[in-house]
Amino acid sequence: MISQQQMKQAMQAYIDAFNRVDVDAIVALYADDATVEDPVGSPLKSGRKAIAEFYAYAIKSGARLKLAAPIRGSHGNSAAMAFDVELNMPQGDKTARAVIRVIDVMTFDDAGKFSSMRAFWGPSDMEVLGAS
Amino acid sequence: MISQQQMKQAMQAYIDAFNRVDVDAIVALYADDATVEDPVGSPLKSGRKAIAEFYAYAIKSGARLKLAAPIRGSHGNSAAMAFDVELNMPQGDKTARAVIRVIDVMTFDDAGKFSSMRAFWGPSDMEVLGAS
Repeated sequence: MISQQQMKQAMQAYIDAFNRVDVDAIVALYADDATVEDPVGSPLKSGRKAIAEFYAYAIKSGARLKLAAPIRGSHGNSAAMAFDVELNMPQGDKTARAVIRVIDVMTFDDAGKFSSMRAFWGPSDMEVLGAS
Repeated sequence: MISQQQMKQAMQAYIDAFNRVDVDAIVALYADDATVEDPVGSPLKSGRKAIAEFYAYAIKSGARLKLAAPIRGSHGNSAAMAFDVELNMPQGDKTARAVIRVIDVMTFDDAGKFSSMRAFWGPSDMEVLGAS
């Protein structure tokens, strides 16, 4: 079974790859037949192709991920982390900073790849911080 | 379906009931046939009786829960929160403060009760802060 340390390193690698706008590196963290449910309650995206399309779109927004607390492991093959997504939103002719507060839960396969990701955030977890 | 606000209020009520050492109030937040997996990777505790025994034991440790970041909702019937469990551990003839870093994921039934709780924390999420 994958170690706690390996899981936490993969979660951190996910944050880092997102923040350097590296879709290939994000997708490489996933297993071929992985599923993504982002947000929880929305239809599953299944397989590398659908997942790559999802991140290519998400990353275009200029979003950056910032851990809100240390990554948590488990006594099994899953880990979880709370983070803030910081992004720019068009607001009239200005740009507003916004934040979405998220918790991601990943499960891992034996090779150490994400077999599933579920992102917990709802409409009330999004906050516009003001125009700049 | 239960609203985002109702879910977050129930999560906060859980933290508050734990911190005032009120096992009955914690158990009242759960559905009759609810399951608890704490930590994730351990056997499920099923039903109110098993859940009440679990919390009666957990609460005896003098643990206190402190949110590490705002509670997250979802676009479905689940919510998640990152918190620190602060507790006293016997260490020789002294007591040491310790922290366990946890993320709880709850799913809700239509009545607004927890139908399941999963607590993500592993051995590496426990830290002894020093004797006092």
